[in-house]
Amino acid sequence: MRAGISIIGGSGYGGGELLRLVLSHPCVEVKQVTSRSHLGEYVYQVHPNLRKRTQLKFSDSTALEPVDILFLAQPHGQAQHHIEEYVKLAPRIIDLSADFRLRNSMLYKQWYGKEHAAPAWLGKFVYGLPELHRAEMPMANYISGVGCNATAGNLALLPLMQADLLDASFPVFIEIKVGSSESGAEGNAGSNHAERANVIRTFSAFGHRHTAEVIQEMKISDVSLTMTAVDLVRGVMATAHARVSPGVTTKDLWKAYRAVSNENPFLRVVREQRGIYRVPEPKILAGTNYADLGFELDESNRHVVSMCAIDNLMKGASGSAVQCLNLMMSWDEMLGLEFAGLHPI
Amino acid sequence: MRAGISIIGGSGYGGGELLRLVLSHPCVEVKQVTSRSHLGEYVYQVHPNLRKRTQLKFSDSTALEPVDILFLAQPHGQAQHHIEEYVKLAPRIIDLSADFRLRNSMLYKQWYGKEHAAPAWLGKFVYGLPELHRAEMPMANYISGVGCNATAGNLALLPLMQADLLDASFPVFIEIKVGSSESGAEGNAGSNHAERANVIRTFSAFGHRHTAEVIQEMKISDVSLTMTAVDLVRGVMATAHARVSPGVTTKDLWKAYRAVSNENPFLRVVREQRGIYRVPEPKILAGTNYADLGFELDESNRHVVSMCAIDNLMKGASGSAVQCLNLMMSWDEMLGLEFAGLHPI
Amino acid sequence: MRAGISIIGGSGYGGGELLRLVLSHPCVEVKQVTSRSHLGEYVYQVHPNLRKRTQLKFSDSTALEPVDILFLAQPHGQAQHHIEEYVKLAPRIIDLSADFRLRNSMLYKQWYGKEHAAPAWLGKFVYGLPELHRAEMPMANYISGVGCNATAGNLALLPLMQADLLDASFPVFIEIKVGSSESGAEGNAGSNHAERANVIRTFSAFGHRHTAEVIQEMKISDVSLTMTAVDLVRGVMATAHARVSPGVTTKDLWKAYRAVSNENPFLRVVREQRGIYRVPEPKILAGTNYADLGFELDESNRHVVSMCAIDNLMKGASGSAVQCLNLMMSWDEMLGLEFAGLHPI
Amino acid sequence: MRAGISIIGGSGYGGGELLRLVLSHPCVEVKQVTSRSHLGEYVYQVHPNLRKRTQLKFSDSTALEPVDILFLAQPHGQAQHHIEEYVKLAPRIIDLSADFRLRNSMLYKQWYGKEHAAPAWLGKFVYGLPELHRAEMPMANYISGVGCNATAGNLALLPLMQADLLDASFPVFIEIKVGSSESGAEGNAGSNHAERANVIRTFSAFGHRHTAEVIQEMKISDVSLTMTAVDLVRGVMATAHARVSPGVTTKDLWKAYRAVSNENPFLRVVREQRGIYRVPEPKILAGTNYADLGFELDESNRHVVSMCAIDNLMKGASGSAVQCLNLMMSWDEMLGLEFAGLHPI
Repeated sequence: MRAGISIIGGSGYGGGELLRLVLSHPCVEVKQVTSRSHLGEYVYQVHPNLRKRTQLKFSDSTALEPVDILFLAQPHGQAQHHIEEYVKLAPRIIDLSADFRLRNSMLYKQWYGKEHAAPAWLGKFVYGLPELHRAEMPMANYISGVGCNATAGNLALLPLMQADLLDASFPVFIEIKVGSSESGAEGNAGSNHAERANVIRTFSAFGHRHTAEVIQEMKISDVSLTMTAVDLVRGVMATAHARVSPGVTTKDLWKAYRAVSNENPFLRVVREQRGIYRVPEPKILAGTNYADLGFELDESNRHVVSMCAIDNLMKGASGSAVQCLNLMMSWDEMLGLEFAGLHPI
Repeated sequence: MRAGISIIGGSGYGGGELLRLVLSHPCVEVKQVTSRSHLGEYVYQVHPNLRKRTQLKFSDSTALEPVDILFLAQPHGQAQHHIEEYVKLAPRIIDLSADFRLRNSMLYKQWYGKEHAAPAWLGKFVYGLPELHRAEMPMANYISGVGCNATAGNLALLPLMQADLLDASFPVFIEIKVGSSESGAEGNAGSNHAERANVIRTFSAFGHRHTAEVIQEMKISDVSLTMTAVDLVRGVMATAHARVSPGVTTKDLWKAYRAVSNENPFLRVVREQRGIYRVPEPKILAGTNYADLGFELDESNRHVVSMCAIDNLMKGASGSAVQCLNLMMSWDEMLGLEFAGLHPI
Repeated sequence: MRAGISIIGGSGYGGGELLRLVLSHPCVEVKQVTSRSHLGEYVYQVHPNLRKRTQLKFSDSTALEPVDILFLAQPHGQAQHHIEEYVKLAPRIIDLSADFRLRNSMLYKQWYGKEHAAPAWLGKFVYGLPELHRAEMPMANYISGVGCNATAGNLALLPLMQADLLDASFPVFIEIKVGSSESGAEGNAGSNHAERANVIRTFSAFGHRHTAEVIQEMKISDVSLTMTAVDLVRGVMATAHARVSPGVTTKDLWKAYRAVSNENPFLRVVREQRGIYRVPEPKILAGTNYADLGFELDESNRHVVSMCAIDNLMKGASGSAVQCLNLMMSWDEMLGLEFAGLHPI
Repeated sequence: MRAGISIIGGSGYGGGELLRLVLSHPCVEVKQVTSRSHLGEYVYQVHPNLRKRTQLKFSDSTALEPVDILFLAQPHGQAQHHIEEYVKLAPRIIDLSADFRLRNSMLYKQWYGKEHAAPAWLGKFVYGLPELHRAEMPMANYISGVGCNATAGNLALLPLMQADLLDASFPVFIEIKVGSSESGAEGNAGSNHAERANVIRTFSAFGHRHTAEVIQEMKISDVSLTMTAVDLVRGVMATAHARVSPGVTTKDLWKAYRAVSNENPFLRVVREQRGIYRVPEPKILAGTNYADLGFELDESNRHVVSMCAIDNLMKGASGSAVQCLNLMMSWDEMLGLEFAGLHPI
């Protein structure tokens, strides 16, 4: 028997991507999907890729029925006010928003600029990146989402941190380039196509909220995320600059990157000497749950450049959420996430 | 002494382009530029290309002072309600909006769906496409704007109509592809970059309002404009399908197209046998006032394909308006419109 | 037991897409994939989306072993010279190239400009568009590919032809807009990004070879395909202009379009009154085998605009080929073609 | 009387842009333009923006006649082999290639991997960035070109270096994002549109040759340029990460950036609190000679992010070359470089 799931907030980009995934997931059945702004419309009228795939309509979040698993895909700042209601609807919750990503209410206040509305719940959620918390997930009832930029940054640093290769006395600079789907379905003045097309727009030199997730998960403090919007719809590319410890060689790096690739089905190392695709690139990851990793080391000055490419709506949001679902339910980690991605695109 | 000009509605794309042109026009001086939504801001904060080019700020349209020439660059439907006030401010007016393009109030009602608010003024305006009404302009006090899509369609048909080559018993289909700047600075849900990027979206199969301008200016009735949005910011490409009269040859067409090119400084014929740019293309026209024309004839069935590429904000709006200004003032027709365009782009 | 397949010519875009599909097809096993230019390389070095999906390397076409089904994905003009060899390797062949699409060697000569090298084989192939030849496929041993532009045109016309709604005394104009992947992995001077980006380039006013497939399959003679390149990687959008017979109404069209949608799992009708996606659009079809159809009728002059959007590499090439495979083998028609497509993209 | 100029190598992107500029420059007359690959063709067949602007044809470089000023716009590595011939043709030479940018033949060998063919000439050229060498130019006979990426990097650092604000004990990381026109008109496999569209491709983590020009001109050694290709035709965006000296404040930075803006007509500071364009962006600079600068300082850790946006073909190549021409000839520095740029684009 399939597990029943419902989604609160299904008309945004994250919710739509989640719907695409769970509608073809062999172990679940979608019960209800809510949307305030599109109440009563067919899901395929908002997400046109789902035409002929589902006859579901958006329903009202006040009319939700109990279900096995509840996904929260609302704008940030809402779940923390309703979590007590939601836990009555389902024994297991996966929240894609930023509300339960941080374990520490002080860190939340520092980066989000206000008090958390349900600080006692922060400790009950597992941070939803399987590559960092896989072992905890089968026992978890509540799993948070991940910030897409944080995920690209965290996975770029993962091989270096896991193998303890970094010189901690140097700061880490993470340059992140992002596509327009990060701005969400609502958009803003700057996302009007005539303004957003062709941009290389460094909209945040530092201070981006996702930085908090890198600080928390990588356990480093001197790290900055610099955000630049480029002309692409889906994709995040993180380029992390750091210094390795004295004596670390390219061979050591190969070993560290291969290790994380071997341990994680959705991590791949891309470092080719020929062809067009020698380094990680987000464009070929559209729709997939892969994170592609690459690196270069300047042994003369210990400068390491570590790269991570992901699809912000997949590995950076809904794909990781489904991966968490699989682990939480002790299903095959890759279920429903089989799409290989397209080339060319 | 330079002629003083003011612009009502300077924060939109048409107004911004007009500003760029008149700020470097050798015979005019910009006095005031109004904007309701950006009142008090520097012009360059909205049009960042004008930084270090002007220290003008947007002013209030209720505080306009008399001036030699008044440009109207407001949204459609406003000028017709205020024309009596505007004529008191300036002896000469050039209106970029749709309000005074049609000569016939019935035609206006048919295509715009409501009564014109100042029908008596329709006959006082000259239609603002110099290639069609050059001779009238030196005597004109009031000149209308042009619809960008209508302009591409009209200029695609011009050589054929002028040389009387078409078989009038066949309908004319004009397929028009357009960039996103046509949606204006305000945008809409569909112009959010993540939705608008990569589109081939036939948003109007027929019934587009600009059709009325083709009917009026080309004096044909069985014509349709089919509008498709594609991924580009600036540009309109019209591909007109029609039938030539029996006996018309490719040589006749060459003669007709060369004639309009010779008679009009901003019309060019593009029909090359080699190289990458063998046909008209709007991308290389960004920022220029050129209209590039091309054609193909299938002599076996008399099917002619006539092409016209323009920059919708230039030849399709502000460029033609400045060209009208030059003619109205008996200045050199090309003044202020010298930019050659970029390659590559 | 899985059926064994091999692919001749796997390094091009069509071959790569085919590989992606068959590698995750539950009933087949890929045996060999050949490439002359990438001999010995890993498949994923050319098609980076297949990293961690296969360890296959490109092999030599002279070293092919017998197999259940042979796919030909070579450049046009090669299969006709080697068909006698290929039939010795496999009892069933599906050819993606243009070599066996036309049934008539005269038509081939007319549109391809030379004699066909194996005219006797033309009659042995079934034209590979399941929506037109589904019934013949279970008995077929040899199935041709389809032209991507022809497919968009044929499917745009299918509802109108099947319900016999067109006035045959009028010509049919099909305006087709295409993405850059149509130019192939080799590219050309005009496909260099700096030249190809932002284009609206009508590279063929008429005379495109795919016209022959529309003439053959729709059984009409007065039809033209006008080809325009736009800025997109994957996608074909056909907009067909025709006249319906006297008395035909929008209601008749709804009936005709719904019928083809009901009869064909990969055809969908898109004609919404609200939302962003009211008409067919190729961008949301990237990677899917769907063809989305739409229409508008001007009852005043019987002008019908019929639209069809597809992914040129899928429904227009490799997707249809796998659909043919499924039908040929009497498997579920949708096997391996389940990907729903992405939104946004 | 106008000064006569000729251009060797006019069919590339740099040569084409130079042609556009000098054809409308009031003080020069273009005498000859050479091209090997397009010999005998009209210039406008290669650079379609120049149609109706010039009837020049590409001529043979062996048939060059003496001229006042010779521009070299050949591929790198050629001018150094022919410099002795060229100086016989003209008393003044401006070379856009990389051949005479470095003053030190050791530095050349280190970064270009081979001996310079005319090391004695290195000392005779002035480095062609007016913002660094304006005073030397009126006396110069030979001026080099600039690397586009080096220029973006050098100008990003200029305010900080000029005001001596940097902590030299920290390395400088310059992240550079570039458009496809950097790959040149010839292109390569990776610049085929279907591969190059939508990319975020970090093609060089460090080791890019333009680094040598930053080392030489900024007199710093621990600097790296990390190059990422993004989806744009024209434009370079440099984001430099460094540390300021203890005690340096945002106010100090404002002063330093305003100073370089006041001293240099083509430098502008972009640091707005409202609107869409708050930071430098290359897209609005297409066709202009401006370099837009911006900065952010994290006073908590002295991390400064300095940004510079340019058009790689203008300020990064041909625009700076014309600016050098103006200074060399003691003409107004901005002659022929008046284009303001487009918005939107």
